Amino acid sequence: MPNISNRAQHMPPSPVRKLVPYALKAKQQGIKVYHLNIGQPDIETPETALNALKNIDLKVLEYALSEGNIEYRTALTDYYHTLGFSDLTPDNFIVTNGGSEALNFAISTLCDDGDEVIIPEPYYANYNGFTSTFNVNVVAVPSTIDTGFALPPIEEFEKKITDKTRAIVICNPGNPTGYLYTREELQQLAEIALKYDIVIISDEVYREYVYDGKQQISMLDFPELSENCIIIDSESKRYSMCGVRIGCMLTRSKKIHDAAMLFAQARLSPVLLGQIAATAAHQNDGAYIRAVREEYTHRRNILVDLLNAIPGVICPKPRGAFYCVAELPVDDTEKFAQWLLEKYSLNKETIMVAPAGGFYSDPELGKKQVRIAYVLKEEDLKKSAEILKEALKKYREEFSL
Amino acid sequence: MPNISNRAQHMPPSPVRKLVPYALKAKQQGIKVYHLNIGQPDIETPETALNALKNIDLKVLEYALSEGNIEYRTALTDYYHTLGFSDLTPDNFIVTNGGSEALNFAISTLCDDGDEVIIPEPYYANYNGFTSTFNVNVVAVPSTIDTGFALPPIEEFEKKITDKTRAIVICNPGNPTGYLYTREELQQLAEIALKYDIVIISDEVYREYVYDGKQQISMLDFPELSENCIIIDSESKRYSMCGVRIGCMLTRSKKIHDAAMLFAQARLSPVLLGQIAATAAHQNDGAYIRAVREEYTHRRNILVDLLNAIPGVICPKPRGAFYCVAELPVDDTEKFAQWLLEKYSLNKETIMVAPAGGFYSDPELGKKQVRIAYVLKEEDLKKSAEILKEALKKYREEFSL
Ligand SMILES: Cc1ncc(COP(=O)(O)O)c(C=O)c1O
Ligand SMILES: Cc1ncc(COP(=O)(O)O)c(C=O)c1O
Repeated sequence: MPNISNRAQHMPPSPVRKLVPYALKAKQQGIKVYHLNIGQPDIETPETALNALKNIDLKVLEYALSEGNIEYRTALTDYYHTLGFSDLTPDNFIVTNGGSEALNFAISTLCDDGDEVIIPEPYYANYNGFTSTFNVNVVAVPSTIDTGFALPPIEEFEKKITDKTRAIVICNPGNPTGYLYTREELQQLAEIALKYDIVIISDEVYREYVYDGKQQISMLDFPELSENCIIIDSESKRYSMCGVRIGCMLTRSKKIHDAAMLFAQARLSPVLLGQIAATAAHQNDGAYIRAVREEYTHRRNILVDLLNAIPGVICPKPRGAFYCVAELPVDDTEKFAQWLLEKYSLNKETIMVAPAGGFYSDPELGKKQVRIAYVLKEEDLKKSAEILKEALKKYREEFSL
Repeated sequence: MPNISNRAQHMPPSPVRKLVPYALKAKQQGIKVYHLNIGQPDIETPETALNALKNIDLKVLEYALSEGNIEYRTALTDYYHTLGFSDLTPDNFIVTNGGSEALNFAISTLCDDGDEVIIPEPYYANYNGFTSTFNVNVVAVPSTIDTGFALPPIEEFEKKITDKTRAIVICNPGNPTGYLYTREELQQLAEIALKYDIVIISDEVYREYVYDGKQQISMLDFPELSENCIIIDSESKRYSMCGVRIGCMLTRSKKIHDAAMLFAQARLSPVLLGQIAATAAHQNDGAYIRAVREEYTHRRNILVDLLNAIPGVICPKPRGAFYCVAELPVDDTEKFAQWLLEKYSLNKETIMVAPAGGFYSDPELGKKQVRIAYVLKEEDLKKSAEILKEALKKYREEFSL
């Protein structure tokens, strides 16, 4: 049998991969499974985007430019101008196959084998995928549920910087925590990045979904980082068009941009159709995003209140994105999540949640936590919370907790 | 300034990258440029595919499964059954963002830093991109124009196999040469792959475009390679839909498939819309492909005859794909290609060709060769050949060759 690479052998599987067969089996037994485990919103894609696809009058679906077509990069530039970053031009953007490819480009542009990136944990599990792909090591700095997953003290980051550190990766607002960084926290990160001349990779794909009248502060708001910052963005969540695979990598650094372009050229072209859909989605007055933001706020309020009302459950209120991390009164959430699918149902319904171990470098740290995505409608979230409450009772009885 | 990775620093730019500004300038001066330098066909995308997009009745453009949706993998399976590979099932396929991503997955699944892949040259220049991305070294085995770029003697491959060799990459029919491997050549490759337990990565994206009544022989036709073969496929050229970014990685090896799936999961999903378009394109009676094949045959015949009629030009007749490599009576085709754009025009028209140096590990080997793509219609190809003929005269005079 031929050799499989170390990078593949060290790829951690997704946190819910092991659960998938159990979910399938539950469904086969006629049990309805509420998917609280993934970030696939049920929100409708803007009609303008769907119409743009229906009205395509191209005869040949040609390659787009490797950096993305000018129409879409112009739409992106206009959007960033409305956010207040008027210095940006289409030349600052590389259009990618989702934020995923932007992350891939960012890591491959900055890091070689054995290099390190520092990430506050819990963090988006696929960061492990993109680092393992390039044999790059994640050095995690733990944040904790009792601070609501605030940025750990900056000294904790500084302690971990070595001559192999290439970047600090943050997600703002955060998946899985929903935490929204303050200006002071971001300022500390900016200073440390400059002090050690490393890069902040700021994953801002949930930027628009921030609640309670607050606004996300982009890392772009720190112009002193012009050579030391990469923004990861995506249309997947902004316009609920995850399947079109359109995102971008954005940097003011010409050096980083030009290096990343080499990877963009090797894969020829980002998706043409997605750029057409996304360009159309951006032609709007903001009503779509406001409405969706309101819907998520509403869902969050319902879910988080119901969770905190369950005895023994702790769930800090997330300020953004559409996830929360909750601590449950169980021995092991991986075991519990499997039990929910394999052994439990309430009126022929159950829930699938993501055990949080996969969001930590050391799974032990997440052993009592789950990530719950509030991507389902009110009624389903209410039923899900009820299922969780009853299931916890039963589980604790069964295992004498 | 932060560090840029070695992998980025060692990425070779595309063979025509340096020429792009000259092409732009020529256009700004009102000169029409015939693009013989790229593989972007002017052939229309099948109407069934375009209609499938127009008729989408989805409300949410959701993520596809990481391995690709079952509808499209079923369409692929059916297609491969018509090719005679009736053992294949949807589980053998991973749908990718173009053949490009399939190549990326193949290399990352098999190779670590410092590993080697052997490739007969001249080869598709972006193989350098995908190997450099993973700090993998290309070990080239030269084929030559006087054999029409046939497979070099198998001993030449064997000599280069080391304990770091993970794969042999072939492209059949070939870009840039148009060469179509014989069963005997493929048999030799299969034997050597088994002998050393390495993998054949067979890039068959031009499979359908083979001329003179011949048929491509797929590496799948060697069932003894079940654990040692990866097929790279793509809809880009087959259905002239390069911009939809749909391809696949296909293997009978569960071990390789499962390892590659980890990379597929990390980037979440291949394009949804492209799968819809490609699924529709596959529902046909073969008339589209037959018509396009005829058109390419026609174009090839015209172009290659005209090229060989130019004094000093040698161009072996390609049996497949839509490229040919021609030797020109010049000192340096990189200089000549730039001169064509910067200094030459015939009735306000000129041509852009790809200097072949970029298709060789040692650019010197391609110094007198260019790659020409016959992706333009008859009339334009005739004009292009005329321009080349007159330009060569002028260039040889100017530089006293
Ligand atoms: C934090 C974060 N970054 C990036 C992505 C990538 O998404 P996409 O590739 O669809 O843009 C996701 C998707 O869930 C995410 O949660
Ligand atoms: C030999 C070969 N392989 C793979 C590709 C990748 O094409 P795509 O990513 O569009 O499928 C190309 C494109 O030109 C090619 O020529």
